[in-house]
Amino acid sequence: MGMVSEKMYELGTKKSTIRTIFEFGRKRAAEVGEENIFDFSLGNPNVPTPEFVKQAAIDILREMEPSAVHGYTVAPGNPEVRETLAGSINARFGTKFAGKNLFLTAGAAAAITISFKALAEPGDEFIAFAPFFPEYRCFVESVGASLVVVPAQPEDFQINFTAFEGLVHAKTKAVIVNSPNNPSGAVYSEQTIRRLADILRKKSKEYGHPIFIISDEPYREIAYEGYEVPYVTKYYENTLVCYSYSKSFSLPGERIGYIVVPDEVEDFGRIYGAVAGAARVLTHVNAPSLWQLVVARCAGKPSDISTYARNGQMLYQGLIDAGFDCVKPQGAFYLFPKALEEDDYAFCERAKKYDLLLVPGADFGCPGYFRVAYCIKTETIERSLPLFKQLAAEYR
Amino acid sequence: MGMVSEKMYELGTKKSTIRTIFEFGRKRAAEVGEENIFDFSLGNPNVPTPEFVKQAAIDILREMEPSAVHGYTVAPGNPEVRETLAGSINARFGTKFAGKNLFLTAGAAAAITISFKALAEPGDEFIAFAPFFPEYRCFVESVGASLVVVPAQPEDFQINFTAFEGLVHAKTKAVIVNSPNNPSGAVYSEQTIRRLADILRKKSKEYGHPIFIISDEPYREIAYEGYEVPYVTKYYENTLVCYSYSKSFSLPGERIGYIVVPDEVEDFGRIYGAVAGAARVLTHVNAPSLWQLVVARCAGKPSDISTYARNGQMLYQGLIDAGFDCVKPQGAFYLFPKALEEDDYAFCERAKKYDLLLVPGADFGCPGYFRVAYCIKTETIERSLPLFKQLAAEYR
Repeated sequence: MGMVSEKMYELGTKKSTIRTIFEFGRKRAAEVGEENIFDFSLGNPNVPTPEFVKQAAIDILREMEPSAVHGYTVAPGNPEVRETLAGSINARFGTKFAGKNLFLTAGAAAAITISFKALAEPGDEFIAFAPFFPEYRCFVESVGASLVVVPAQPEDFQINFTAFEGLVHAKTKAVIVNSPNNPSGAVYSEQTIRRLADILRKKSKEYGHPIFIISDEPYREIAYEGYEVPYVTKYYENTLVCYSYSKSFSLPGERIGYIVVPDEVEDFGRIYGAVAGAARVLTHVNAPSLWQLVVARCAGKPSDISTYARNGQMLYQGLIDAGFDCVKPQGAFYLFPKALEEDDYAFCERAKKYDLLLVPGADFGCPGYFRVAYCIKTETIERSLPLFKQLAAEYR
Repeated sequence: MGMVSEKMYELGTKKSTIRTIFEFGRKRAAEVGEENIFDFSLGNPNVPTPEFVKQAAIDILREMEPSAVHGYTVAPGNPEVRETLAGSINARFGTKFAGKNLFLTAGAAAAITISFKALAEPGDEFIAFAPFFPEYRCFVESVGASLVVVPAQPEDFQINFTAFEGLVHAKTKAVIVNSPNNPSGAVYSEQTIRRLADILRKKSKEYGHPIFIISDEPYREIAYEGYEVPYVTKYYENTLVCYSYSKSFSLPGERIGYIVVPDEVEDFGRIYGAVAGAARVLTHVNAPSLWQLVVARCAGKPSDISTYARNGQMLYQGLIDAGFDCVKPQGAFYLFPKALEEDDYAFCERAKKYDLLLVPGADFGCPGYFRVAYCIKTETIERSLPLFKQLAAEYR
């Protein structure tokens, strides 16, 4: 008998590449000064939390009975909050949700893991499209299922449907859609979502059970002019939506988000029930109660994405000018250019000479590319552009 | 292939006895009026959140940079917060923790499940002492281990050591200690903890691996005059402490607590690492960030337990006067008297005639008893006492 779970020990101590790069950056910053480090490693929103969010929190703390603010809520979340959020989604997207369709969670990470755990049976497969958020693998495997990765379609980072169709099996339980995408910055077009829905409908019929879409949407509000993010439940009935306020209201530390289970899923009662059970064993108890009230008060208020839009445009132009091959920024706050040599790790190592901290694409299931998170100071991006030029010049 | 996980569906839809009683109470209250219902079913703190907690939250929101308040913290929690909390524990209990010994969590439910998941290997057994918090079973089984229950010692609700010694095996991974206890209201004496530590030391040696104590302490601050709650790490080296501010600061909805991993455990690095891994797969990300800062500002400030002390004393005296057999209130906000007939479900059904809502002891692994949660209005308790007398008179 060992002392601890070996698997948990490994998961808790093996540093992610992103974390390793970030820590290297902190060390370098101490040596050469903060202003000389160009850290594009972390997806931590740098737009401040909106003033109206702060004010809502203060007002709630001041005006309401403490037990109404800080008491346990029912496990799916405060019923009035859920009604308000459902109404806000409906007003924006023409959906018809009620409070009973929402299950509030401690952010999107909890929302997607609860969804995985609710659905997963032994031997199930979940499909992700490269490039993808690396924690998906850890979350899917933790519920006893396995992750199947569809190779990227690097010319536009939409879905590689040919590869996808070959990978859907009788054991496929669900497909993870993440748009606007981390790390590619692409927004799946309406056409992409329609085609995905058609294939899944056909395959669900063929295999005699629904194949779900789990739409992981923390970046939904960060979509730039000309790019609409289709609301997936309108295109495909067996969809669970996982949302978070981490990026839209810059509240990543507070852990607040939700799962939408539409009426149209194959058996609402069974699925919502399984979501509740999964939340229970993941000891979710309830989403933080103050933040439930805050997001209800701020429902429908806009996210300020102008900084991200400006940063993305500037960085994109700079990279193109330097000779990089890169899809235009469409949403989220990432670019995912092609590395200038085949080995993306070697490329990112070389970039370090210029104190450009980039994340290898292999970490996202897409070797030969690299991720640049531009949720940093605009001025830092501006000063980084000549360095990208120098880096590119090395390869000529 | 089914559609959802059958197990999750069951866990999410099978109502707990407590929840069923509570919902019955809400229905009855609508019929006969709130003031005519004596709902002793829920352990929801009724003492308001202290003013200093509210003020700390408002001050933090007003004075600090939003990104410092609402940004991601490192997974174990804000390092300064952890230092402050460690210092506060040390000042109160003479321990020697540093920030690195703490791992902040979304309340005690997360803390204990993370601890279970960090330690559990296939086939492991965790031991609980009846009466016990019923969710332990669900949490232990969810990490693939099994729960072994030591029968109660009803004369004082300390530990039944004879039964315990017979139930410790080579497969025993840990023992769950919950003092002040839900549901008995007992506080384990120093003598109890010493004897438990001696047995576990002997058994750990015999089986060649440490048997841990997981000390679940959400009620630590609610201990009445004359009852000290020993700090378990001082008596037994392989102890993990799980703490929560839900009861001490009446913040159950906000989900804030911590795990203490002392330096003295057999292999600090492996255990803390496994805790981090378990938190990761339970998608804990970080404990809600505002509340991390709030509890650090309020560290060491007292909990007001005077209402619970008054309620407990009044209810205890009333039950004794009515002829019930009951251990004196020592801590938490529960009494656990003997039912007046063998079948505690039948007894609680009978109590409903008087609109006394009580929870059968069988739910806590201790049939023949019932739980009375006295975290309700003092005046309601006062008015309930004649009803308990009438109920008891039926049995004479």
